[in-house]
Amino acid sequence: MRGRARIRSLCNDRSGMKPFPLRRVYQLLEPGPVVLLTTAYKGRKNIMTLSWHMMVEFEPPLVACVVSDANFSYRALRATGECVIAVPSVKLAEQAVAIGNTSGRDLDKFEAFGLTAAPAGRVAAPLVAECFANLECRIYDTRLAGKYNLFVLRVLKAWIDPARKLPRTIHHRGYGTFVVDGKIIQLTSKMR
Amino acid sequence: MRGRARIRSLCNDRSGMKPFPLRRVYQLLEPGPVVLLTTAYKGRKNIMTLSWHMMVEFEPPLVACVVSDANFSYRALRATGECVIAVPSVKLAEQAVAIGNTSGRDLDKFEAFGLTAAPAGRVAAPLVAECFANLECRIYDTRLAGKYNLFVLRVLKAWIDPARKLPRTIHHRGYGTFVVDGKIIQLTSKMR
Repeated sequence: MRGRARIRSLCNDRSGMKPFPLRRVYQLLEPGPVVLLTTAYKGRKNIMTLSWHMMVEFEPPLVACVVSDANFSYRALRATGECVIAVPSVKLAEQAVAIGNTSGRDLDKFEAFGLTAAPAGRVAAPLVAECFANLECRIYDTRLAGKYNLFVLRVLKAWIDPARKLPRTIHHRGYGTFVVDGKIIQLTSKMR
Repeated sequence: MRGRARIRSLCNDRSGMKPFPLRRVYQLLEPGPVVLLTTAYKGRKNIMTLSWHMMVEFEPPLVACVVSDANFSYRALRATGECVIAVPSVKLAEQAVAIGNTSGRDLDKFEAFGLTAAPAGRVAAPLVAECFANLECRIYDTRLAGKYNLFVLRVLKAWIDPARKLPRTIHHRGYGTFVVDGKIIQLTSKMR
């Protein structure tokens, strides 16, 4: 199975998600949404919430993020070198906070919060089928990992749910306060 | 002049801005707003627009950002090791984009776009009086500067305009499209 047929098949396996161009990945993360990060290690999948991330390069897309070593996900990320960054819309705000309030040490958070782990194409970490975007990542640079838990990741493959045109994301302001995306404005910019 | 009197005096010099606790700086940057970055070098001040930034540590606040070496500000930042990160509200959206569309090589952008450079307390780079928050920063780690133009900055002093309670910030989605902060939601979070 090759080409379009293969892509169609992959989409069917992933709840309608379709591949998203790597050169446009920055448009998903640059606005600063709260994201979820999934890992898989020793037969166990896990998911955490984070918003300390930023773009570092357009293409191939590089993303920096801070994953505290206090998180259960930290060990899986370091050991496997892989993760998925999934972008939830405001509809998943309660789950995103609940995921942040609990630890994968104690429970299967996918099961606990009703999320569907879908197979990724390039990494063992799962996609989150309920998120409108999923980025398959591999650790690219760990020079700042020791001091700040800062990882530079390379996005290997990106997926988006084409049925959801303009999902509103959430932005954390501290202590459970979130700003939801409001109106969109267009200004003449020379920058991409 | 010491203590409160000195602070009052500083406030008057800075259009009503007052010091903001360093432990709360993350609440300004974590939501991912478009920010302005100012520098001062060889008697010349400059300002650029960026949104590739993230928090790295709560306190002392550390911030990572990418300042491309294609920017005129890059040399000033590297040479002086100092900058100010100023957070504009949506009212300054047009200026923020205009600042991104032009280079300090060619013009004094403060003058060109009607912005007021106010004196900082700890760095030579100026505050932007029209912005609701200003963070005085010094370069803290340059290990990823060579490869990615990624700087880790330490916030030395923070200022906020107390007259503006909930300014709406803007978030870049690429090619001049911005999402403006919308409604605020509160969820029960154990995380700060």
